[in-house]
Amino acid sequence: MSSAVEPQTTPKWIGMAVKRLEDGKFITGKGSFVEDLALEGTLHVALVRSLYAHARITGIDAREALEVPGVLAVYAAADLPGLYAPGSGGRDAKVVQHPVLAQGFVRYVGQPVAAVVATSRQSAQDALQRVYVDYEALEAVCDPLEALQNAVLVHPGLGTNHALRRRTTAGDVEAAFAGAHRVVGARMVQQRVAPTAMEPRGVLAAWDKVQGSLTVWSSTQMPHEVRGSVAEALGLPENRVRAITPDVGGAFGAKINVYPEEILVAYLASRLEKPVKWVESRAESFVATVHGRAQVADLELALDAGGRILGLRGRVVADLGAYILDTTLGNAPGTILMLQGPYEIPAVDLELVSVYTHATPTGAYRGAGRPEATYYLERLVDMAAHELGLDPAELRLKNLIRGPFPYKTLTGAKYDSGAYPEALHKLLELTDYAALRAEQARARQEGRLLGIGLCTYVEITGYGWDTGAVRINPDGSAVVFTGTSPHGQGTGTGFAQIVAERLGVPLERIQIVQGDTLAIPFGMGTAGSRTLSVGGSAILNAAEKVAEKVRRIAAHLLEAAPEDVELGEGGWGVRGTDKAVSLEQVAQAAYNPRKLPPDLEPGLEGQATFNLKEANYPFGAHLALAEIDRETGQVRVLRYVALDDVGVVVNPLLVEGQQQGGVAQGLGQALYEGISYDEVGQNRSASFLEYNLPRADQMVWVEAHRGGTRSPTNPLGVKGIGEAGTIGATPTVVNAVMDALGVKHLDMPLTPEKVWRALRQGQG
Amino acid sequence: MSSAVEPQTTPKWIGMAVKRLEDGKFITGKGSFVEDLALEGTLHVALVRSLYAHARITGIDAREALEVPGVLAVYAAADLPGLYAPGSGGRDAKVVQHPVLAQGFVRYVGQPVAAVVATSRQSAQDALQRVYVDYEALEAVCDPLEALQNAVLVHPGLGTNHALRRRTTAGDVEAAFAGAHRVVGARMVQQRVAPTAMEPRGVLAAWDKVQGSLTVWSSTQMPHEVRGSVAEALGLPENRVRAITPDVGGAFGAKINVYPEEILVAYLASRLEKPVKWVESRAESFVATVHGRAQVADLELALDAGGRILGLRGRVVADLGAYILDTTLGNAPGTILMLQGPYEIPAVDLELVSVYTHATPTGAYRGAGRPEATYYLERLVDMAAHELGLDPAELRLKNLIRGPFPYKTLTGAKYDSGAYPEALHKLLELTDYAALRAEQARARQEGRLLGIGLCTYVEITGYGWDTGAVRINPDGSAVVFTGTSPHGQGTGTGFAQIVAERLGVPLERIQIVQGDTLAIPFGMGTAGSRTLSVGGSAILNAAEKVAEKVRRIAAHLLEAAPEDVELGEGGWGVRGTDKAVSLEQVAQAAYNPRKLPPDLEPGLEGQATFNLKEANYPFGAHLALAEIDRETGQVRVLRYVALDDVGVVVNPLLVEGQQQGGVAQGLGQALYEGISYDEVGQNRSASFLEYNLPRADQMVWVEAHRGGTRSPTNPLGVKGIGEAGTIGATPTVVNAVMDALGVKHLDMPLTPEKVWRALRQGQG
Repeated sequence: MSSAVEPQTTPKWIGMAVKRLEDGKFITGKGSFVEDLALEGTLHVALVRSLYAHARITGIDAREALEVPGVLAVYAAADLPGLYAPGSGGRDAKVVQHPVLAQGFVRYVGQPVAAVVATSRQSAQDALQRVYVDYEALEAVCDPLEALQNAVLVHPGLGTNHALRRRTTAGDVEAAFAGAHRVVGARMVQQRVAPTAMEPRGVLAAWDKVQGSLTVWSSTQMPHEVRGSVAEALGLPENRVRAITPDVGGAFGAKINVYPEEILVAYLASRLEKPVKWVESRAESFVATVHGRAQVADLELALDAGGRILGLRGRVVADLGAYILDTTLGNAPGTILMLQGPYEIPAVDLELVSVYTHATPTGAYRGAGRPEATYYLERLVDMAAHELGLDPAELRLKNLIRGPFPYKTLTGAKYDSGAYPEALHKLLELTDYAALRAEQARARQEGRLLGIGLCTYVEITGYGWDTGAVRINPDGSAVVFTGTSPHGQGTGTGFAQIVAERLGVPLERIQIVQGDTLAIPFGMGTAGSRTLSVGGSAILNAAEKVAEKVRRIAAHLLEAAPEDVELGEGGWGVRGTDKAVSLEQVAQAAYNPRKLPPDLEPGLEGQATFNLKEANYPFGAHLALAEIDRETGQVRVLRYVALDDVGVVVNPLLVEGQQQGGVAQGLGQALYEGISYDEVGQNRSASFLEYNLPRADQMVWVEAHRGGTRSPTNPLGVKGIGEAGTIGATPTVVNAVMDALGVKHLDMPLTPEKVWRALRQGQG
Repeated sequence: MSSAVEPQTTPKWIGMAVKRLEDGKFITGKGSFVEDLALEGTLHVALVRSLYAHARITGIDAREALEVPGVLAVYAAADLPGLYAPGSGGRDAKVVQHPVLAQGFVRYVGQPVAAVVATSRQSAQDALQRVYVDYEALEAVCDPLEALQNAVLVHPGLGTNHALRRRTTAGDVEAAFAGAHRVVGARMVQQRVAPTAMEPRGVLAAWDKVQGSLTVWSSTQMPHEVRGSVAEALGLPENRVRAITPDVGGAFGAKINVYPEEILVAYLASRLEKPVKWVESRAESFVATVHGRAQVADLELALDAGGRILGLRGRVVADLGAYILDTTLGNAPGTILMLQGPYEIPAVDLELVSVYTHATPTGAYRGAGRPEATYYLERLVDMAAHELGLDPAELRLKNLIRGPFPYKTLTGAKYDSGAYPEALHKLLELTDYAALRAEQARARQEGRLLGIGLCTYVEITGYGWDTGAVRINPDGSAVVFTGTSPHGQGTGTGFAQIVAERLGVPLERIQIVQGDTLAIPFGMGTAGSRTLSVGGSAILNAAEKVAEKVRRIAAHLLEAAPEDVELGEGGWGVRGTDKAVSLEQVAQAAYNPRKLPPDLEPGLEGQATFNLKEANYPFGAHLALAEIDRETGQVRVLRYVALDDVGVVVNPLLVEGQQQGGVAQGLGQALYEGISYDEVGQNRSASFLEYNLPRADQMVWVEAHRGGTRSPTNPLGVKGIGEAGTIGATPTVVNAVMDALGVKHLDMPLTPEKVWRALRQGQG
């Protein structure tokens, strides 16, 4: 285990519940989002979007639109050079190019067909109605199981809807199932959901015609990716593209992708040599921003008589939608990777098929493949407990992995560290599980439908590498640069704590710089719960470099040996004496070559990159107590307890914020949310009237607890917390409702109608 | 001598006359200066300035001003906390604080007394007339020799006008003068001149009330100095102040200082929590921006019969004006430092007295002390040649230092490298000096007043340390960061050439970032002709760090040893083979840890600081051929030849630009320019009607030549060129005119009237 952050003394800042330094501006409405940016002479883009899930475009008539006052131009695909949005293809995937405006055919409702450019957003919007697109409607396929049949092809050129097929087998699955005492299985649907960040997407691009360079402000999770994709699409070197993320109002994975609109707006800015802006409306967001989840799994679990899991087999069908964005293909392989969960499973046979459909592309959404895996497995485990007459906690305890770590799974994961049974035991203790079950029994006798849901999970966080820099100004104040690009998480506060801890800079004298490809050497942005373990470790390493120089300068000023100098209460002092200098004094000397040791360069800045060689694996155990209203079928979660172990906790307030928010989002999927398409591929849920995002009074305050099993993968010893709550909550809540209903399985969302119907069926 | 830039092959970019990459935007009027910046809701400041050189303020009545529509507030000193402009004091100098608004007394015409804040600049300007300041006029002293008497005190609290007194003696001066064959001497006045950059000063400050931070855009040479001074004056940590220099339209040293207006505007922005802007008018610039030169010297040179210099003695009185800004005190000591010039002088006794006067503060102006020294010495040498009946070239050749280098002068300089006689010989050869003298003789016979002026000079350039960074993006394009902050010199082009040379990046794929305290770790800005030798060396060292990493990555990709990899025509290849990879391939690998050697951090950026331990000393020889119109006294420079040796030349076009412009500015002082005060301290030359800035048709095209005596002080082998032309031109032109007139000495500017009167006197 790395010991880079092992403190010389008790940690002062790491572990402290510091309030978010970021909150002031947001609470007072002073955030600055793409929508708030105003450049003189900005032109506005509105997009004509497909009304059909599948159609041939037979004509586009923009003449009336061009007469709308303020409208300058209307562009269709034919007016542009071949402009495509980026998309990650796997080595074995069938991928088509993704045009920024539809070429000849439309393949989902909402696909951009034409772009209206006007001097005001209102003019551009008004003109949309006057762009007449003639369509010849074609048969559409939006259901992934139907798409699997290849009766209707989304991309005829590929000859199949199957973009990706993989099979993962290990152990003797045949034998496991042949010799099983019980086999439980079900078809389980992970419905499409919409990420619905508070701030929809938006992009503003300004072309500097003298320099031949472009600045792109985007509501993105990945400014360096925007820079690279825009540069590539427009044929510019990357030094002529600067991407900036102003404040970003949430993203949940959906803003990892670089979308057609970003490429289009950047192109139009360079073509028209004017600032060009597009901000997504809420209605557009429901059809044009990726959807999450969207899988159908047929899975079976084999168990012996004692409740030991013998094997897992089956198929996951992933619905990709019509095109491949950066995160579209990656989710379902992540589901397979994590399907062993925290359990000993000696044999697996898992098939994955990812299919195109005539629907909005899917992509990463909080958890991105892992919530699906956890949901399937935790549902199967509960079904098995029911079949075997075992308590769900007991069945889990029989099967949880006990190490040693690192632990390699049959599905390809390598768990870095864990304490799975301990986590469940702790949860049971925290909730007084036995008493809870007794309370449930009493309630049932009173006719109340109370259910208890459990979940134990392990998930994967962190990837790639990132940069960090710490600069101490001449007056001792600090600026911290990070390649990560948070969108509301408050990670800057955690970064400031790390720097305060290592260097003794007061928090209020630390400024965080993020989201600007000019100010920051490189960054992979914020995704996959990577920010602290990758970005934070880079900052820690940068701070260590600064600390080493501070130590040498302080030693020089104090006429001591560097190895005797340490950071203490009185500043940087000589161990065992009261001789010390302040960081301010060190900084002054650092900028004055006459005061420096002769072998040191002036200045006081450290830069580092941190490459996370192995992912880390948070884990935990959740419990929900839910009650069903017999009259209405409405589910109410009465209590929710989350024990999440994400290793070292830098700031418990920030972590708890993610626990609360994560559980809320999982609960939303379990009970309320879902995108659905009708038989011709119309999105039936493209507004908040139809799409039921949970309100505050539908949520439960999470009793949030944390473990502390250090990760060996990074010097901070941390794992990611951004997605754990969502991963744990969905099966926990569904398990509680099934427990209350006494029903094997219902697909999400567990709407009152669905629950009420199940109740009626159950009662005969 | 350092050999860091010794090329593996013939240099490709260093030495090439690349056209300025910066020119496009300026030529097309697309520069963005402080005046061009528009922030919503900006408030504008106009300043009530003192009408008196010296007075007591007995009352300020702003009631009428506050009634002008748009006026929000009027502030005088009493309304502000104690706000002071920064100013560098020497260890032995008497310095008073410099209030941003006059406190009780005014001490020069133009001193800010009150600030009007309004919603438009027009309103603020209109209201100026309605702020009634009652003054009780007091006696003023604007002449430095009068100020020397201390009869009228500028700062009574100091008890003297003498801010600084120093004496520099070495060798046996008494004996030198006692044994001299001839002593020549004169009182020589270096008149006050106005730097008159095309863009006057300007500052815009915006306060972010949520973050409690300030952004200051200033037309400055030193953004980091602005940051530090504003932070200190406002009591903010430096991480809460960001200073940005947009395009800056010239400065000539005058924008090194952080002025009262910068502190005031920053303060008002923080107090009013609004953007606040002030842009100097041309009229203000003549009274509120520092003046240059402003010295009176009484100096004598002792010579033996053969024309060898035996000693130099006398006194320089420097006129500081009323307050000490950052550069006010430093000029005159620089004059003393450089008074030995390029000559062997065995004994010196030099006194310096810097005095306060009731005049605009003086400060650095192109050359900053060195033009004065060179002027005095070169005038004395010409006087001596005249007295001894020697040709001025001959006298110089008898006395020029022939080494060895480094050569320590009696005045404290340490010349790094030089070839002074060689430079003069070369000049004489280039101009065919003998033929020129013959032509002069013929012309005189024809009644034409032709004069030949010579000058040999050495000057001092470069100081301090600075930062540089070179970042290679994933696509191989580059961004170069410099702590220097040019204001029109085009140094970015030179920096790009250095990076192109070392790394093989095409020029058009290099972007230069400067003038932003956020993007750049630290910088000392641009002053003292330091940019290339200090900033350029930092960039070279940063590029070397990148090159080292490139070499290792290329070796890894090519399966070769790093020491066998070099930059060649085909990219980074294995010496002696045709195996090579492009920088793009290296960059792609650098950002992909899987392609990197395991011991290398991902990313491709190098940062370096360069500390110039010893200054460097450019030198040269100039010649002017001038003709006087007998009827009008008008001087016309017919020919000007400059041989400037500034070591290695990175870009001859850039260097020649500085030679042309520098000579123009020296010629301006010699013939046209001058600020003068009347007997009550009114500035009589505060507009371009009175202040005679030379026009294009008054200039001569300089025949510009360059030496190549490498400097050992930095790895590029360069010296500064920013000031050499100005240093050489003033004495060269005056010597030519005196030669034409046959007069010992006239003070500058050599206006037609002055020359005409001298002609009349000469003709008796």
